[in-house]
Amino acid sequence: MNAHLLTIGDEILIGQIVDTNSAWMSRELNLQGIRVNGKSSVADTPEAILRGVQDAARYADIIITTGGLGPTKDDVTKKTLADFFGSGMSLHRETYDRISAYFAKIGRPVPEAAIGQATLPDDAILLVNKVGSAPGMWFERAGKVYISLPGVPFEMEYLMTQEVLPRLADRFPRNPIVHRTLLTAGEGESNIAKRIESFENGLPANIKLAYLPSLGQVRLRLTGTWEEALTPDAEARLNDLLDAKKAELAALLPDLLYGYDDDSLEKTVGRILLAQNKQFGTAESCTGGYVAHLITSVPGASNYFPGSIVSYSYELKTKLLGVRPDTLERFGAVSEETVREMVAGALMALDVDVALAVSGIAGPDGGTPDKPVGTVWMAVGDRSRIVAYKQVFGRDRLKNIQLTGTYSLNLVRKFLLEAAV
Amino acid sequence: MNAHLLTIGDEILIGQIVDTNSAWMSRELNLQGIRVNGKSSVADTPEAILRGVQDAARYADIIITTGGLGPTKDDVTKKTLADFFGSGMSLHRETYDRISAYFAKIGRPVPEAAIGQATLPDDAILLVNKVGSAPGMWFERAGKVYISLPGVPFEMEYLMTQEVLPRLADRFPRNPIVHRTLLTAGEGESNIAKRIESFENGLPANIKLAYLPSLGQVRLRLTGTWEEALTPDAEARLNDLLDAKKAELAALLPDLLYGYDDDSLEKTVGRILLAQNKQFGTAESCTGGYVAHLITSVPGASNYFPGSIVSYSYELKTKLLGVRPDTLERFGAVSEETVREMVAGALMALDVDVALAVSGIAGPDGGTPDKPVGTVWMAVGDRSRIVAYKQVFGRDRLKNIQLTGTYSLNLVRKFLLEAAV
Repeated sequence: MNAHLLTIGDEILIGQIVDTNSAWMSRELNLQGIRVNGKSSVADTPEAILRGVQDAARYADIIITTGGLGPTKDDVTKKTLADFFGSGMSLHRETYDRISAYFAKIGRPVPEAAIGQATLPDDAILLVNKVGSAPGMWFERAGKVYISLPGVPFEMEYLMTQEVLPRLADRFPRNPIVHRTLLTAGEGESNIAKRIESFENGLPANIKLAYLPSLGQVRLRLTGTWEEALTPDAEARLNDLLDAKKAELAALLPDLLYGYDDDSLEKTVGRILLAQNKQFGTAESCTGGYVAHLITSVPGASNYFPGSIVSYSYELKTKLLGVRPDTLERFGAVSEETVREMVAGALMALDVDVALAVSGIAGPDGGTPDKPVGTVWMAVGDRSRIVAYKQVFGRDRLKNIQLTGTYSLNLVRKFLLEAAV
Repeated sequence: MNAHLLTIGDEILIGQIVDTNSAWMSRELNLQGIRVNGKSSVADTPEAILRGVQDAARYADIIITTGGLGPTKDDVTKKTLADFFGSGMSLHRETYDRISAYFAKIGRPVPEAAIGQATLPDDAILLVNKVGSAPGMWFERAGKVYISLPGVPFEMEYLMTQEVLPRLADRFPRNPIVHRTLLTAGEGESNIAKRIESFENGLPANIKLAYLPSLGQVRLRLTGTWEEALTPDAEARLNDLLDAKKAELAALLPDLLYGYDDDSLEKTVGRILLAQNKQFGTAESCTGGYVAHLITSVPGASNYFPGSIVSYSYELKTKLLGVRPDTLERFGAVSEETVREMVAGALMALDVDVALAVSGIAGPDGGTPDKPVGTVWMAVGDRSRIVAYKQVFGRDRLKNIQLTGTYSLNLVRKFLLEAAV
């Protein structure tokens, strides 16, 4: 089964935005055993959209377009698709009511553009968009499926996950492709590859291992395929084999592995805190609140996270966290001594059981020969011990902040697990 | 003059890498007045490459391919292009010597693959690659130009800058395409469209307006084109016209407009703080440090941002910010009264001139009929006045946090500008 992804809109053609949607969609479709054999981008004119759809349909069974569905007049996508499929357009009451209800809720008059947005091709199956105003559309012609989605990433992701992928799974019979993903933090791709080399070489031909690195983390994805005729038994055997390989791999990386599949480091830390019934807080300098943001992005974080102090200046490190001016003067803000005092201060100021402190040089300026840009000191501790750790990252400010987020949360995870032993 | 960008390689189709090359190329080509009217990605098989090139040539005058030129997959792309153009292939001595010299320099034997890499189509003009081993290639057929470049970003950028763009400027007389982008925050696409409807309807045919929405923000892009014969005077007139329209549009949205082109709300707030010589801090509940993270993602933020208090719990709102327990009990943490006291407390605790406070229900749980999930109170103030503002966002936790970030920074921007009047 082949799919083509078609992006509609000038913003991609003029290079104003980088197309991250299609990489995400490719991965999700691949997981369902659907191969993406082409991608293209066209302008939002009727001619260009028509050409894009027609060209794609020559080689693909599933054509998914994104973009060109906003409330303003720069969209012609719906009309062009309706014409292409010989479908009329009419006002879709339910969609109009949903848009109206949204504006009522935020206390604003319903804009006139809502009528245009709720006017939809009669022949389309509508894909209800609960996170935005433009519904997705699903057409079928001559055995091929044409799907139109909004271009806003979270709306596209919502519709793909809730509507498109389940419908595609129903619509097209497929051989099973099964995945297991192991999540690791704190080590690079090449070092992990070296540690699991003989495991990887010993994998059977129908199981593949992929390394999916992101900032400070590597996801290890095991993919099992079954090309023979499908029986329930075959699928169960494939799942058993994959579970065995997953357990084998997990046993090789106990220090790095923090979770599986859609888990995250911040969720893992939250679960451990809940299980240990501990309150946690952060004292942040170079990350400027980013670690607290990660922690509080998890629903229910208020159960274990009362708060945080972002002490960017020397003065606030002293005033709010009790770091001694003498320490700052002798060792600098980016030092083991300072982060240790920040932990001790945070335990008191935030009334928590465990605290994390980070202080570093995020860049691009502020480095010295001794402490180059990217130098970060992290410490985590409770009332009986404090562990400190230094890491030197790179020159990119935002990357340094994000890497510190990952490394320091992994430090907290390991500290909590050690404390429980 | 129209160009098509064709990416060759499976890594883009399976979503393993995000294609950043083509956004960069589009911007550079646009600046030269070359319009990119299509982009596509195909697998690195002869059939797929051939189809990609042929499809592109139906609509574009300039076809630029990237990828498929590494030392391993080299043969397919070059051979396919040579066949397509009916060109022979032979060993290119100069290229072979350059590759050999490179390996001599790093003290390694010349790999066998070097012969393949130096075997090139006879009909191509070679574009010398001084930062990698694979040269670019330039073919011409029937008035169209076909360019093949390596996919490694810095090699592609080197060849575009040093070879392709100067050659294209010589080869094609150009018509300018000029852009102006206005950045707004705090209002949705449809409502902006209504406010500027008559401006939009009055635009001349060669100027187009596009709405580019993201969370809480809308970018408005004016694009001017000039289709007549090009004179230096014509380009200047187009720029003048676009500047006039930009000023007209800016005057219609003074409350929403915060910057132009590649600016950001957090940079704008930082610039105003620097100009007014003011220190700024945040007291955050529902955003959990996200606003502080936005502010400190800007290099040099330490000049105007000493820190922040994330008070997620009632206790820390009282202990660190001096919010009265009575206020919390009577009005709740998500209330105008509480955020006003948080601002007052933050001004004192952080020793700043201006403070922002936010408290809301990020969700997905915790809503009440009175205060549904998504309700957020924000306040900003200095020692003489405090302004409070309520907004009801949606049900998605992360979106609510991000929207609050945008809305509250816009509130700070407006407060600072009003204070300066």
